[in-house]
Amino acid sequence: MIGKDIHDFAKELWPINRSLTGRGNRETLDLIKARLPNLQVKEFKSGEKVFDWQIPQEWNCESAYIVTPSGERICDYSKNNLHLLGYSTPVKKKIELKELKNFLYSIPRMPNAIPYATSYYHERWGFCISEKEKSNLEDGVYEVNIDSSLTNGVLNYGELIIKGKSSKEVFLSTYICHPSMANNELSGIVVTTFLAEWISKLKNKYTYRIIFIPETIGSIAYISRNLKKMQESIIAGFNVSCVGDDRAYSYLPSRDGNTLSDKVAKHVLKHIDRNFKVYSWLDRGSDERQYCSPGVDLPIASIMRTKYAEYDEYHTSLDDLENVVTPYGLEGGFNALKNAIDLIENNDSYISLNLCEPNLGRRNLYPTLSIDQDWSKVKLLKNVLSYCDGNNDLLSISEILNESFSTVLDVIRILLENDLIKKI
Amino acid sequence: MIGKDIHDFAKELWPINRSLTGRGNRETLDLIKARLPNLQVKEFKSGEKVFDWQIPQEWNCESAYIVTPSGERICDYSKNNLHLLGYSTPVKKKIELKELKNFLYSIPRMPNAIPYATSYYHERWGFCISEKEKSNLEDGVYEVNIDSSLTNGVLNYGELIIKGKSSKEVFLSTYICHPSMANNELSGIVVTTFLAEWISKLKNKYTYRIIFIPETIGSIAYISRNLKKMQESIIAGFNVSCVGDDRAYSYLPSRDGNTLSDKVAKHVLKHIDRNFKVYSWLDRGSDERQYCSPGVDLPIASIMRTKYAEYDEYHTSLDDLENVVTPYGLEGGFNALKNAIDLIENNDSYISLNLCEPNLGRRNLYPTLSIDQDWSKVKLLKNVLSYCDGNNDLLSISEILNESFSTVLDVIRILLENDLIKKI
Amino acid sequence: MIGKDIHDFAKELWPINRSLTGRGNRETLDLIKARLPNLQVKEFKSGEKVFDWQIPQEWNCESAYIVTPSGERICDYSKNNLHLLGYSTPVKKKIELKELKNFLYSIPRMPNAIPYATSYYHERWGFCISEKEKSNLEDGVYEVNIDSSLTNGVLNYGELIIKGKSSKEVFLSTYICHPSMANNELSGIVVTTFLAEWISKLKNKYTYRIIFIPETIGSIAYISRNLKKMQESIIAGFNVSCVGDDRAYSYLPSRDGNTLSDKVAKHVLKHIDRNFKVYSWLDRGSDERQYCSPGVDLPIASIMRTKYAEYDEYHTSLDDLENVVTPYGLEGGFNALKNAIDLIENNDSYISLNLCEPNLGRRNLYPTLSIDQDWSKVKLLKNVLSYCDGNNDLLSISEILNESFSTVLDVIRILLENDLIKKI
Repeated sequence: MIGKDIHDFAKELWPINRSLTGRGNRETLDLIKARLPNLQVKEFKSGEKVFDWQIPQEWNCESAYIVTPSGERICDYSKNNLHLLGYSTPVKKKIELKELKNFLYSIPRMPNAIPYATSYYHERWGFCISEKEKSNLEDGVYEVNIDSSLTNGVLNYGELIIKGKSSKEVFLSTYICHPSMANNELSGIVVTTFLAEWISKLKNKYTYRIIFIPETIGSIAYISRNLKKMQESIIAGFNVSCVGDDRAYSYLPSRDGNTLSDKVAKHVLKHIDRNFKVYSWLDRGSDERQYCSPGVDLPIASIMRTKYAEYDEYHTSLDDLENVVTPYGLEGGFNALKNAIDLIENNDSYISLNLCEPNLGRRNLYPTLSIDQDWSKVKLLKNVLSYCDGNNDLLSISEILNESFSTVLDVIRILLENDLIKKI
Repeated sequence: MIGKDIHDFAKELWPINRSLTGRGNRETLDLIKARLPNLQVKEFKSGEKVFDWQIPQEWNCESAYIVTPSGERICDYSKNNLHLLGYSTPVKKKIELKELKNFLYSIPRMPNAIPYATSYYHERWGFCISEKEKSNLEDGVYEVNIDSSLTNGVLNYGELIIKGKSSKEVFLSTYICHPSMANNELSGIVVTTFLAEWISKLKNKYTYRIIFIPETIGSIAYISRNLKKMQESIIAGFNVSCVGDDRAYSYLPSRDGNTLSDKVAKHVLKHIDRNFKVYSWLDRGSDERQYCSPGVDLPIASIMRTKYAEYDEYHTSLDDLENVVTPYGLEGGFNALKNAIDLIENNDSYISLNLCEPNLGRRNLYPTLSIDQDWSKVKLLKNVLSYCDGNNDLLSISEILNESFSTVLDVIRILLENDLIKKI
Repeated sequence: MIGKDIHDFAKELWPINRSLTGRGNRETLDLIKARLPNLQVKEFKSGEKVFDWQIPQEWNCESAYIVTPSGERICDYSKNNLHLLGYSTPVKKKIELKELKNFLYSIPRMPNAIPYATSYYHERWGFCISEKEKSNLEDGVYEVNIDSSLTNGVLNYGELIIKGKSSKEVFLSTYICHPSMANNELSGIVVTTFLAEWISKLKNKYTYRIIFIPETIGSIAYISRNLKKMQESIIAGFNVSCVGDDRAYSYLPSRDGNTLSDKVAKHVLKHIDRNFKVYSWLDRGSDERQYCSPGVDLPIASIMRTKYAEYDEYHTSLDDLENVVTPYGLEGGFNALKNAIDLIENNDSYISLNLCEPNLGRRNLYPTLSIDQDWSKVKLLKNVLSYCDGNNDLLSISEILNESFSTVLDVIRILLENDLIKKI
């Protein structure tokens, strides 16, 4: 079961602190590269202009915690990296509980969850804590310790190009900027890694561009560096996020809504789960925001399990590898994307080599007696053949027949073996 | 409350007898001109050929009434001009009740209503009377008096051109041929007058062509005189009728059904009253019949309150300024058309000045902390911006987002102030 | 009642044994030619290649029956030609019941029905028998007699060309290869014959190509001989099958689904029976399979009563002229196709001769008094006229107005008489 292997890899990556920048991101990319030797780890320098933005300073943290009046160490970053507000500035001081509370973030309606919070572009410090722990804090003076640094450094990302017969590209993008959270985001990193391993072994028709980047600033920077090539080459692609739980399948469209990626995503998900959720472009929230922005206009959709911001544990310590993300959930996410890629690779058009129906009987594809037969297979074969007119690709035929792409592809192989059609 | 002022103006116009032609029409146009000094009162001469028609003779009436056997004066035109069949020929004679009844029009199912009836193109005389009064008439000899005249004269209409930056035109047409009836037709005259006053004070982009004409023969004559110019210039327009009661909002499409006027009318009405009534071109009955006829093909739709022929009081003395047309009803009709014009004036297309999403945080348009925020305003702003690709006008964006045009326009202003978009 | 005449002709054809080839087909064509003197009986020779197929040998049968151990003659072909498996090879031998049963075909769920079965392209012999009779067969030795022959001969078909003003063609195709079965197929032969008689008396605009052929191999052969001419000329057409019972009206589309034939079929059937059944191209099963195949692509749809394979009696001895096909059923099928042809012949476009509405009053088409009128006829006339813009054919106008084509055509005639429109 490949889901188990994907889940094991997620556990390996779990403790690492990821953010827009920093040491944790490089560690993450190194572990990915161990599985994908051709991955290139690249960088942007702090201060570099990318469209309307600037690459932020590199943030690293050695340690962070609070000491209570009783001497207990709480909110310890070494125990759970969610405790520290992302991009916190260094601080070391003693303050009263009342003042401290201005720097503590919790979620009253989720008493046991440590929330996830960041302040990338405004200098601040803070800690995230469960509501339960916060409400039990004793009065008195607390010692706050954040040994962090903001320096001119780099923003890293990983890029893997898998060449195909065609220079036309399929694009996969996933993000590496969240600390220890499982569905959003580790599921994306690990499923993308395993997809890349699988694609590397294909005799793939298309070239694959696969990137591991920080969300928003990372995708903006990547586009600013590669826009022309991406617009020339990319025919389809997916933002890979939230592909690890087992509660739903979801589709979020490209801005255009009718690209190849959209058609593929809807087809694949419908045949996995007829009740898959369909979101709107207005519900977007990840890097499709950049890939589909006006003037960029790439054909990028999202295939997900339960979508970000649509489940309780989202952006908290409860989004974990035990209760939320499971081997079975990851395998489902992996297979949905694998099916999508399979479809894109095989979505050719064929044309019948005969005018009128061919004589199927003499090819042993049709019964010689007109009675007492199971006609369903013959009917499917004739239906597929009747749409092999050179105008319909296999995805269109699958949709017309309301059959899965793989069912139709199986029939196409029989028709090819019998010299009844040719690819055009 | 502007509805009150509009209603007051309607009261002023109420007693005047209007028809296809005649003194009452000139009085009506004079009172409109008192509010719109640039209105030009123009004319067609009796007998003039206009397409398949001829301008009829001018009809005027000094007095009209019937004297009963008891000497009572009934059906007195000076008390209610509906009593006289429109375009009645002069008559002065004595006749028995039995014969008289051939010349009396009433509505059995509405015992208290005086109906409205005309005979424009066939010489006749007659009186309109309530069913109740008619059924109580005593036997005996009646004296019939109609002091009317049909002479070679003119058919008048009012035309107001309000120049805009562009020579492209928005067209408003309303009719001035019905005697004292409130929703159909006075509401159209008074709302159009007040709209013209409001437009005159705008820095309008488009030129406005606003006409006050007799229905059918008037619009046909007007088109015959102005067709080329109208076809070159008019980009949208509305026939203004039945805009004064407060029971419904209604839309009647152009023949094409998908012109700018249609899109604007549907958008505006949906955001005023989600349950607005949608009629079909097959339900038409006013001057859109001419404006949208084959070969004329102007983009004219109708925004109404309760549509002609769809309410009991229609074409009777009960269509009055007390029970049917109200200040509140008129204000609703005025505002719907005002919103439509506002929309047309501002329906531009914009394009984002950045590739990818801009950095909203440094413009104070996005929170610097990722937690505990109200995201709805930010989300709306990003959604509007994501469709500023130069291809979508603001009406399209409003429809995609299911927001009112004015809501979207407010966001556009913020984006403009922050140099995030430009008009194209 | 024409249904009675059609039914009588079906009775005449009933006893003849029809198959892909043979004497029975020639007898059938001779009886059709007696009604349609211009019918040409043509042929393909056994062994001739037609696309991916070969014309089979000619099959004839003198007699066929089984003698039971008790000396009774059963499964007698002279009593019911369904008893013999189509294309049975000659045989004369004695066999035990147990072995004989391998050559007997019956339908367990329909104990009284003799099934219809064939083995055109694989040499076999066999008999068809009711389940009831089969289950009562005594043990012992049976004598099997089939005096049939398979020889190099011909495959026959009938072709009738009825010239019209235009060389553009309407195509009707029906099949002549089934033995004694009524809805599928005799109804098709007889209704097509009567349609051809009716068309011969029309001043038809289009040329009619009407063929009587064996199903599948016949239509394939016909296409192979006439493809270029058919593609150049045919603008619409119908495969005529299952038009004789009175239980339903049905439509099966062309592969394209939106040809003139499809629009006509749907319009005509909707106005005969609002609940007519709509099938999909995936439900096809007759010669539309060839006419609409990729590269052939003719605009052929099907108008049927109860569709083949959708009624219990289909392909059995129960599909008869008493309980299934009736005079009333045949008349319904005839009229549906007649309406379709009427529509195609008259589906012109017209343009109004006036800008704006014409003055209908002076043509006595509009009341001169505005009150107490029935407006429905005037409204229909104005609605039809409003769409006479040169762009809409009468079928489009009928669909827009949701009126039957004949209702609209009646209005068009009034408009023509009054010089209000002209044909374009």
